[in-house]
Amino acid sequence: MTDRFAPRRSVKQVEEGTELAPKFDDEGLIPAVATDYHTGELLMQGYMNAEALSKTIETGEAHYYSRSRRVLWHKGATSGLVQTLRELLIDDDQDCVWLRVEVAGGASCHVGYRSCFYRRIPLGADADKVLEFTDTEKVFDPKAVYGDVPNPTKL
Amino acid sequence: MTDRFAPRRSVKQVEEGTELAPKFDDEGLIPAVATDYHTGELLMQGYMNAEALSKTIETGEAHYYSRSRRVLWHKGATSGLVQTLRELLIDDDQDCVWLRVEVAGGASCHVGYRSCFYRRIPLGADADKVLEFTDTEKVFDPKAVYGDVPNPTKL
Repeated sequence: MTDRFAPRRSVKQVEEGTELAPKFDDEGLIPAVATDYHTGELLMQGYMNAEALSKTIETGEAHYYSRSRRVLWHKGATSGLVQTLRELLIDDDQDCVWLRVEVAGGASCHVGYRSCFYRRIPLGADADKVLEFTDTEKVFDPKAVYGDVPNPTKL
Repeated sequence: MTDRFAPRRSVKQVEEGTELAPKFDDEGLIPAVATDYHTGELLMQGYMNAEALSKTIETGEAHYYSRSRRVLWHKGATSGLVQTLRELLIDDDQDCVWLRVEVAGGASCHVGYRSCFYRRIPLGADADKVLEFTDTEKVFDPKAVYGDVPNPTKL
């Protein structure tokens, strides 16, 4: 599986080359950012291990590594909200990947919103410290979709 | 400074509430994703510590924590490529922030490209393993901008 990834030999190779040489951190993970292909909206930020990145490349569907459940996570396997890749990019030092996706069902957030980013932080030294909801309508009912699956949010 | 951040008391508070209660990891960091306010393009993914997040909120300009240099990093302080926030959002479990920014000079990548994500990974089980450049024109000359500042890319 990992014959897909080249060893990291030089800054020039990593930054200016055409070899896929991703940097996985000490826990074997690389951050992955998913945006909606059509709207550009940021849907979620997650992590992939080598297996998740390989599966994503091979299948064209987003796979992550769930840090809370410690398993390979085919996004949408439970909820049906599969992320189909239209484009996959990697950054300059190859320590982050960008998924441009179309989402079945139109939602990516386990709380039920379209995007995980549904609250705005007011800006300014004197700004109010109260988050503002940018989205108030849930696309689906998490209880109906996930049933008794434990909530992944950790305090 | 951290009176800006609420303690994390419950999943409901974190996911559905209006208190800013960000989750910093074991190293005191939270991932931060910056997209171009106008084009939606993903510019970079970095990290903030509590100080960087506070400074970002207070000043409306992106501050990160540089893991390679281990310092608070006012993006653009060296290059002039300041990121001015138009909107700052936080995700469902408050462990990631999204910066929607305008970039002075139009570039965010230390290699000289507009975005850090200038290479595409071909998809499919039989796909070619060669990265495709999506952007071939550098917006600036890194040597002219950064001079002798060490390259932040680590192997």
